[in-house]
Amino acid sequence: MQDSSDNVGNPDWLNSIRWTEDGLVPAIAQDAETGDILMMAWMNAESLRLSAEEGHAVYWSRSRGKLWRKGETSGHQQVIRDIRLDCDNDVVLLKVDQKGGIACHTGRRSCFYRSLEDGQWVEKDPVLKDPNRIYGSK
Amino acid sequence: MQDSSDNVGNPDWLNSIRWTEDGLVPAIAQDAETGDILMMAWMNAESLRLSAEEGHAVYWSRSRGKLWRKGETSGHQQVIRDIRLDCDNDVVLLKVDQKGGIACHTGRRSCFYRSLEDGQWVEKDPVLKDPNRIYGSK
Repeated sequence: MQDSSDNVGNPDWLNSIRWTEDGLVPAIAQDAETGDILMMAWMNAESLRLSAEEGHAVYWSRSRGKLWRKGETSGHQQVIRDIRLDCDNDVVLLKVDQKGGIACHTGRRSCFYRSLEDGQWVEKDPVLKDPNRIYGSK
Repeated sequence: MQDSSDNVGNPDWLNSIRWTEDGLVPAIAQDAETGDILMMAWMNAESLRLSAEEGHAVYWSRSRGKLWRKGETSGHQQVIRDIRLDCDNDVVLLKVDQKGGIACHTGRRSCFYRSLEDGQWVEKDPVLKDPNRIYGSK
């Protein structure tokens, strides 16, 4: 049985990536239309292969230790328009259409909603939808 | 003597960042005007503090194990317009003005110049300046 860090049998385009020691690569998601940076998460070879095959972003959840099909609970899927690789082969960029216009689990458009101002992180972007309404109340 | 992973005495905004075990955080550089994603590199606390203080991007070079003042050789400095932090406190986004219009050591505007097409990484963006002219011939 193969685990996710065993890349034997993967296509060349996957094997050309320089994975971390944990078998991961950072993946930036950018809105294909507006250019907004939505989030950064991590992928292993399986999640990147699935993303390319299925056309929707699939990440690797480091905290949960399993595949994370973005939007499987929230409906906020990311439809992939382009997959890019950087010059060092160690960062992936996804250009996506963000379903629902919300990428962040806080209910904001982008995870990068805080800006450094006068030595403090200041929230700049509004909550578009209550997370309890996205994920259901606990 | 403090090393770069000793964050005692750092301001609260730096201490709120969730650094990796190596004391680093990924930093994405985005063109403040066009929204183009230029590169992703790493910062330690000192380089992020210097970036904020000096208004130019300073990274931590993992390969060289030292501060990397972006543009010190090439002249391609990144003037910082905004510093953002993500919801998990573990990714930084810089919105910058890219001096010379070139961020990548290959002489291209962005490091993300290859796109996945039919199972291959295909170069999509032109070299704007010969790297030998940027860094000098060896």
